[in-house]
Amino acid sequence: MVVYINSKENEKIKFAYKLKQEKYRKKYQKYLAEGAFDLELAIKAKVVEAVFTTKQLDIDENIVQYIVNEDIIKKISSLSTPQNIVFICSIKENKIDKLDKIIYLDEVNDPGNIGTIIRSALAIDYDLVCLSNKCASIYNPKTISASKGSIFLMPIIKKDLKEFKNTHHIFVSALKEEAVDIKQIKTKKPFVLVVGNEARGVSEESLSLADEIIYIPIKNIDSLNVAIASSIMMYLLK
Amino acid sequence: MVVYINSKENEKIKFAYKLKQEKYRKKYQKYLAEGAFDLELAIKAKVVEAVFTTKQLDIDENIVQYIVNEDIIKKISSLSTPQNIVFICSIKENKIDKLDKIIYLDEVNDPGNIGTIIRSALAIDYDLVCLSNKCASIYNPKTISASKGSIFLMPIIKKDLKEFKNTHHIFVSALKEEAVDIKQIKTKKPFVLVVGNEARGVSEESLSLADEIIYIPIKNIDSLNVAIASSIMMYLLK
Repeated sequence: MVVYINSKENEKIKFAYKLKQEKYRKKYQKYLAEGAFDLELAIKAKVVEAVFTTKQLDIDENIVQYIVNEDIIKKISSLSTPQNIVFICSIKENKIDKLDKIIYLDEVNDPGNIGTIIRSALAIDYDLVCLSNKCASIYNPKTISASKGSIFLMPIIKKDLKEFKNTHHIFVSALKEEAVDIKQIKTKKPFVLVVGNEARGVSEESLSLADEIIYIPIKNIDSLNVAIASSIMMYLLK
Repeated sequence: MVVYINSKENEKIKFAYKLKQEKYRKKYQKYLAEGAFDLELAIKAKVVEAVFTTKQLDIDENIVQYIVNEDIIKKISSLSTPQNIVFICSIKENKIDKLDKIIYLDEVNDPGNIGTIIRSALAIDYDLVCLSNKCASIYNPKTISASKGSIFLMPIIKKDLKEFKNTHHIFVSALKEEAVDIKQIKTKKPFVLVVGNEARGVSEESLSLADEIIYIPIKNIDSLNVAIASSIMMYLLK
């Protein structure tokens, strides 16, 4: 279906604009994404509800296309140079077949890091990305952009780490005296791999739930970027 | 030395402002960095020429401190929320003791990726980060920010890959039929590890110089982020 919209005051535009705020994303269980590359993956993942575009697109006819002008795109886009396609996605409950390999983000604050970790988790074939309540928003435009479309395909939930304690082996990444070099670690499935905040590392609660504390030996500086450390660990523990 | 500056039109401020542009960074062989964390590392690395700050700092007396107001900081800062410390660094020729392990960036475009790779290279104890001429600027504020201070400590140069052909084993990361799983690869020192552009991968020229083509097997999506892929490979090839 194709519908033309010329006014920024149109209700559909006002609704899309609201989704720039986390509180409305939560309320309506919807979020915005942008660009042709992401749209293609989101359509495959069957999460697209409506598309705002400056030019009619050759996509599934069941998806409503609002043809709008560049001013309207600018209003609902989060990019300084919009790509002329903005679309609304629904947040769906993930069907999760198995839970052998889980990456758990404990207070990761930077949306770009979260998006990059989601992308790595999908590529390294993890089963789930799980976030603590104190992480940045999954549906922040920077998370979505950094995920390069993997956010539409990767199962992601919010949950307390302690809910995995009875079912999973818990590896916690931390620079502690008792930590073991990741290279010495043998995978024990099913497992959860926990990584922490960019500045403070993992929480005391996560440490107290650890079955093994692990680390990547480094030199010259204090830390690796959390998305880098997570990805190296995911790769080695798969 | 402490000097007070009240005007945005002061020559020192105008000079600092010029360094926001790559052409002046090249011309004067200087660049800007920001924040207390980076300043501490830059002082250790002996690259700081002058500091602009809203409050006098307890640092080496030989470094000139210009005490300025927040408006002036805003003018010379690259951050939307400046940290009240902006400083000028000199680009020095790196003393390089050995060249056993080199990471080579072939047309990497995103300054954040370059900064993150520099940080990983320092942490994983590589000897040199080498950039092709088509990479983003080393001294872009986003490169410096993502490097988390490692830019002051890590040897970095620009050079053609072919200059290493006679002295180093060249590993090139690319998704080609003849590529070998990184897990099967044995390190051969001295070596250069080449990674490519975010969208296009490595250039044909780099491929033609390869002694071995290597890849990280992934599933579900087309690629890992280049900083992630580089760091996993650096870690495995060290």
